[in-house]
Amino acid sequence: MSGNGALFDGIFERGAGARAAGADVWLAALLEAEAALAAACADAGVIPRAAADEIAAACVPEAFDAVALAAAAADSATPAVPLVAALRTRVSADAAGHVHHGATSQDVVDTAASLVARRVLELVDADLARAAARCAHLAHEHRATLQLGRTLLQPALPVTFGLKAAGWLHGLIAARGDLVAARARLAIQLGGAAGTLASLGADGPAVAAAFAARLGLVEPALPWHTERTRIGALAGALGTAAGAVATIALDIVLMAQAEVAEVSEAGEDRGGSSTMPQKRNPVAAISALACARRVPGLVATVHAVLPQEHERGAGTWQAEPEAVRELLRLTASAVAWTAESLERLVPDPARMRANLDATGDAVLAEAAVAQLAPALGAGARAVVTAAARRGRDEGRSLAEVLGDDGHAVELDPRRYLGSAELFVDRALDAHRRSR
Amino acid sequence: MSGNGALFDGIFERGAGARAAGADVWLAALLEAEAALAAACADAGVIPRAAADEIAAACVPEAFDAVALAAAAADSATPAVPLVAALRTRVSADAAGHVHHGATSQDVVDTAASLVARRVLELVDADLARAAARCAHLAHEHRATLQLGRTLLQPALPVTFGLKAAGWLHGLIAARGDLVAARARLAIQLGGAAGTLASLGADGPAVAAAFAARLGLVEPALPWHTERTRIGALAGALGTAAGAVATIALDIVLMAQAEVAEVSEAGEDRGGSSTMPQKRNPVAAISALACARRVPGLVATVHAVLPQEHERGAGTWQAEPEAVRELLRLTASAVAWTAESLERLVPDPARMRANLDATGDAVLAEAAVAQLAPALGAGARAVVTAAARRGRDEGRSLAEVLGDDGHAVELDPRRYLGSAELFVDRALDAHRRSR
Amino acid sequence: MSGNGALFDGIFERGAGARAAGADVWLAALLEAEAALAAACADAGVIPRAAADEIAAACVPEAFDAVALAAAAADSATPAVPLVAALRTRVSADAAGHVHHGATSQDVVDTAASLVARRVLELVDADLARAAARCAHLAHEHRATLQLGRTLLQPALPVTFGLKAAGWLHGLIAARGDLVAARARLAIQLGGAAGTLASLGADGPAVAAAFAARLGLVEPALPWHTERTRIGALAGALGTAAGAVATIALDIVLMAQAEVAEVSEAGEDRGGSSTMPQKRNPVAAISALACARRVPGLVATVHAVLPQEHERGAGTWQAEPEAVRELLRLTASAVAWTAESLERLVPDPARMRANLDATGDAVLAEAAVAQLAPALGAGARAVVTAAARRGRDEGRSLAEVLGDDGHAVELDPRRYLGSAELFVDRALDAHRRSR
Amino acid sequence: MSGNGALFDGIFERGAGARAAGADVWLAALLEAEAALAAACADAGVIPRAAADEIAAACVPEAFDAVALAAAAADSATPAVPLVAALRTRVSADAAGHVHHGATSQDVVDTAASLVARRVLELVDADLARAAARCAHLAHEHRATLQLGRTLLQPALPVTFGLKAAGWLHGLIAARGDLVAARARLAIQLGGAAGTLASLGADGPAVAAAFAARLGLVEPALPWHTERTRIGALAGALGTAAGAVATIALDIVLMAQAEVAEVSEAGEDRGGSSTMPQKRNPVAAISALACARRVPGLVATVHAVLPQEHERGAGTWQAEPEAVRELLRLTASAVAWTAESLERLVPDPARMRANLDATGDAVLAEAAVAQLAPALGAGARAVVTAAARRGRDEGRSLAEVLGDDGHAVELDPRRYLGSAELFVDRALDAHRRSR
Repeated sequence: MSGNGALFDGIFERGAGARAAGADVWLAALLEAEAALAAACADAGVIPRAAADEIAAACVPEAFDAVALAAAAADSATPAVPLVAALRTRVSADAAGHVHHGATSQDVVDTAASLVARRVLELVDADLARAAARCAHLAHEHRATLQLGRTLLQPALPVTFGLKAAGWLHGLIAARGDLVAARARLAIQLGGAAGTLASLGADGPAVAAAFAARLGLVEPALPWHTERTRIGALAGALGTAAGAVATIALDIVLMAQAEVAEVSEAGEDRGGSSTMPQKRNPVAAISALACARRVPGLVATVHAVLPQEHERGAGTWQAEPEAVRELLRLTASAVAWTAESLERLVPDPARMRANLDATGDAVLAEAAVAQLAPALGAGARAVVTAAARRGRDEGRSLAEVLGDDGHAVELDPRRYLGSAELFVDRALDAHRRSR
Repeated sequence: MSGNGALFDGIFERGAGARAAGADVWLAALLEAEAALAAACADAGVIPRAAADEIAAACVPEAFDAVALAAAAADSATPAVPLVAALRTRVSADAAGHVHHGATSQDVVDTAASLVARRVLELVDADLARAAARCAHLAHEHRATLQLGRTLLQPALPVTFGLKAAGWLHGLIAARGDLVAARARLAIQLGGAAGTLASLGADGPAVAAAFAARLGLVEPALPWHTERTRIGALAGALGTAAGAVATIALDIVLMAQAEVAEVSEAGEDRGGSSTMPQKRNPVAAISALACARRVPGLVATVHAVLPQEHERGAGTWQAEPEAVRELLRLTASAVAWTAESLERLVPDPARMRANLDATGDAVLAEAAVAQLAPALGAGARAVVTAAARRGRDEGRSLAEVLGDDGHAVELDPRRYLGSAELFVDRALDAHRRSR
Repeated sequence: MSGNGALFDGIFERGAGARAAGADVWLAALLEAEAALAAACADAGVIPRAAADEIAAACVPEAFDAVALAAAAADSATPAVPLVAALRTRVSADAAGHVHHGATSQDVVDTAASLVARRVLELVDADLARAAARCAHLAHEHRATLQLGRTLLQPALPVTFGLKAAGWLHGLIAARGDLVAARARLAIQLGGAAGTLASLGADGPAVAAAFAARLGLVEPALPWHTERTRIGALAGALGTAAGAVATIALDIVLMAQAEVAEVSEAGEDRGGSSTMPQKRNPVAAISALACARRVPGLVATVHAVLPQEHERGAGTWQAEPEAVRELLRLTASAVAWTAESLERLVPDPARMRANLDATGDAVLAEAAVAQLAPALGAGARAVVTAAARRGRDEGRSLAEVLGDDGHAVELDPRRYLGSAELFVDRALDAHRRSR
Repeated sequence: MSGNGALFDGIFERGAGARAAGADVWLAALLEAEAALAAACADAGVIPRAAADEIAAACVPEAFDAVALAAAAADSATPAVPLVAALRTRVSADAAGHVHHGATSQDVVDTAASLVARRVLELVDADLARAAARCAHLAHEHRATLQLGRTLLQPALPVTFGLKAAGWLHGLIAARGDLVAARARLAIQLGGAAGTLASLGADGPAVAAAFAARLGLVEPALPWHTERTRIGALAGALGTAAGAVATIALDIVLMAQAEVAEVSEAGEDRGGSSTMPQKRNPVAAISALACARRVPGLVATVHAVLPQEHERGAGTWQAEPEAVRELLRLTASAVAWTAESLERLVPDPARMRANLDATGDAVLAEAAVAQLAPALGAGARAVVTAAARRGRDEGRSLAEVLGDDGHAVELDPRRYLGSAELFVDRALDAHRRSR
């Protein structure tokens, strides 16, 4: 957490990824960009190496007064202007003239945003990998653990808890893939005042190449001051990842209901209520959902400012960096909480089986239809439907009612799992390939 | 600003209203709620007055370690749990048992949110009033200042700058009205663990009434733990207010374009660019837009979590307070920036007139149609359309082309302003009534 | 439904309100606006009464080729232009010159939107009233029906089903109030090409007043071509209403889970699955949720285009009418589905009691703390927490464990309902006042 | 257009791609899925080939009563149930039992959505290619056409119109890439009632493989009934594409302002106003913006329902297909309108040059700094800033003021374009590689 007294940071700034997207990360990222820019200019022979070194040495976040910079940012609608001014005062007069050489404010802010995003995405990937590993374990372990499948929150057919975990796993693998792709597109920005790199003369491309190389970011074909597809794609991938983990958290919260009780989050002292000592809330899953619920609105915000005016947006671009940072922070928190929830998850196979059995064999009506179809053809469905209703009303099992009608069926959930095990294997294969 | 090194706070936490919605305001607001709750319990004779006084005396934000509380909030998905625990350690053992009496975490968090919202809305109202006063001045002053009316960003008909300001004013009056209404609905929350106030026995209603009276908030008919229409209405009013000021800011940014140059924001040292010393950007209007662009996504987030589960939401309610705070902060900033932009606004009536004249009299084609209609009936339109095209192609005025065709017209923009002045008067009347 | 082969209209265009917001309603609404405008011009003596009558007589939707108009709308980014042209061809040459007199396209489109919104809101109000009446009945009937209160989807304390219904009722009353207020603000639009009503000369205000009077809409102080606070407020109220009904639907879906089974939607043949004959899905509640989930994004869209350029927006205003119509349609459907679900709702008090009992007396831990507090003071909480954990681990009741420890308590849920009944009464009072 | 009297379809259902996402496309797509499923079952030997052929022959949209199906969809919250029932009545009793074999409603709805999306994306790609080709032409043609670069809507530095077009082009190339990737992930859905394919016994995988092969869609590793990352990624890519074209449309609308007048949309009879015969609105660009403004809210809607419950969502999944269809429709329209606007675009290089010259040489202040830096070092900036202000106040050129102060500079915009031409070449290269 940022250590700034934000009481909700424990929930919404959870884990290393989220902390790397905290409100206070800009200063370090902007200075990293300025230092690399100076070094790149020196690499290209545009400024003296000594000046670049001096500038880089001055790019120490602790040396700057962030509160004063924030206040001054209001004069130019960007913190880059006062930061550059402050940096110039911290180097020799000679080096001062080489600070921020050839760049515009947006160049360093966009590049800083790429640096922040890269760092966060690396950490998010690690948390997604943790979560995926745990899902893979659950899928493997519980490949034969019977569970009631539920559609529209109503009993459907038997499934296995392993299959459910395999579905979670598959979503995580897809989310990781999308975020890796988004990370691979993160680029430096260097276009100068209007995207021509005019102030660098013929040296612009060399400086840009060195700048990208030093930071390990993509060198774009041309400046992207108002060509924001990278940012749109990043937002889309973050929104999808938040959705992938929220699916898991939602299932956990639903399975943890007292009436269902198929899973719980371990941890004796967690989830306590201020008034109900007996409560054991699945706090990690609930927190994951809380973070994820805030994500789609942010995706909309970022997408709404994709169209930016002329060579630099007027109120559009300025809205973007903080929205993207918040999107990174909340997605990272959602992922971290989901990984924690999965790691604390205690499945209760006996209760899963009990819940399945409690629904009676009516959930196997489809199996009954299949068994009777050879004899009854298309009429099997109507026969079973009528029998299921009768069974429900009379409190008898479907098999019994059908048997009384002369339609013997054998309804065993273990024998009506279709390709569940194959699907688990496929998800585990995909997981092995994804690591 | 929160003083936490958030470099963009100068833009997005502008003005007193926004600062009152800063990330660090929760601690004070929660403690204010706890103190008032204790006092209300004493008022109702439920706890000793001395305990209430002791608790109130301990509710001093500086005495708490916000960072530790934030970290501990993660264990229960709310900062209220660790805060209550910490508060109990700061009073005598006797008083400790009376801390948070009868309340659940959501009671104090929701009440704190009402307190934060009320404070912010009061300050936003003051900024809206400032902005409205300035618009009224402009509307009055420029009621006869001719300006080119533009529809779809193309020349339409003459208007007055006073009429434009009157339209801005009317939006501000409406936004103020909506926010005042939303403020009047802000309520305490007091329902206890499940909304029955069971732990207060028969004293619940008396405590609730005293709690509301002490804080000056509405006493709701019943607890609203998952009945969130108040919050939905607040979000809607904030979104509308942000839209009202952004309309003004957008017009200013468009009029400030160098090619239009009808207004500028005064302030010699503002709006500077890091690379272009000649630039004079309308920074306040641009910042207002930047804030406002982030608002609709937050409204969607708050509305998306209006449906909350059973007696307290699982991941829905938890997502709400911070989203609402951010909505308050950004709307407040958008309003503050717009007020500043309006106060710095320097209109250029001569340039307005020049831009109008530069379009020639083709913008008065409608007036020409009206003047010719008595003679030509419905055919007037076609005659004028053809003449306007010819004039455009031949670089001649519409009046001249029509005159050559024997259709004499007199096209003076000052005589084609319709009810513009009346509309200005009506807006000024509405403003007088609204104060 | 529009009868256009849109297979999902059965879900998303449910009820009379939603049908009144169907994609095909614009033609009739635009013609109603044109007819009223002509009549208003005649009222003010601006055009001959005979022409107005002729125009009104021609404003028959069936006489127009909607498909051709839709295609032609593409040439001017509004259907008003081709509609006016077509209307002119359907009247005498004399009357043709009086069609659309003094108005701009936006005048009739905005006025038509007000007409559509008014009609929809009237019908939505009727459905909200139905839903409220049903909730009031449930609240009254089940004021003593014990139910398990659930927070974070975990057992909390006993409540009554009547209290839950009272909470639903209160949200509906609030939503109705907000929509009535939004309806009362619906206004005509009449500003002419640039908001000055120039082409009506001195007659503008008289025409506007007559136009408003004829349609029963508000006469605004001045044109609101780009002052869209009315629309922002409407969107906010619709979003809030959708949230209010979705809260109910969500509770119903959760209570209808097989493991909870506290309510079901009556209707033998509904909710069937294509493959699972035994299924009885709460289709109305699920459909209400499906509609409501689509609403917040639309609120964001409408709010994002509140800032519109100069005298008429370029791409902002054009985006608004269809977004508002869709918002009306989906909110109306969500309300209609919720009313249906409530009317079909079959509560199961016995199951409610059974679920409460199944949690044991640990949900009354708070009551135990209260009973022991006089003796143990602040230490009561720790004693009860420890006992609750022991009870849980040993499968014994809390009262038993506490008794063994010498702490006799009596834990009866009926005696721990606090102010539940009072709250029900208050909601019923509010309902009586709201009718 | 759907031919259903939706007057705004001319704007929001523009082009073949949008029409392929019209409200009426579901019937055909669902029938295509059912036919392919039957054929796949026959391929796998699960049902008789004759039955499959008979079913396929019956899958003729015209044979079904879409209005009745839409109405019936309300009973089960999906149109698939009544469609399957209707299809069964249209084949022999023998074949009827083989209709929809092994599938659940979501299987055919999700598969139909994939089919709709694929068709739309193919057509959108063609429109994006058209737009890209036109941008490439403009970039090539105008690589030396001087234009004023504008940041924050204020004059910045000289650029070329070719560079601006190159930036547009780059965004289109990126958007195409993302949409191609999203298209390549479109998959069949086949999981049966609970995702196990139980009713297909051991034949499930073979049927799924044949189903995918017949439709040319991806065969997923496992069913994705509630694993919606594919849909999240699709929504993200559509939102990004809408942003990419809206950036172009916004620039065009801004450049087409009368005061700027650097481009216009050709087409004598287009863009007319109902009241202002002289108007020439850039209707295509405005319509593109109108479509694009409605997109981000839909992305948020789709992302908000990514977390879906258990084996099939309750109100989440049901909300998705229509939201996705609308997202496809509006994005397709935005792309089509942008392609049209670009094809009609008439740039005015003389006016571009005139606008640049009108700003004087102050936009070259950065160049002056660079020229003076060798002599003045870091002090050059202050010297030029002071001179620029003096020049502005005295109405003199920057070069003149500087010259008077003994600082000779040569300020020619053609010599201050930096790497603009290189960037154009790079964008053209990327375009060649992308075709």
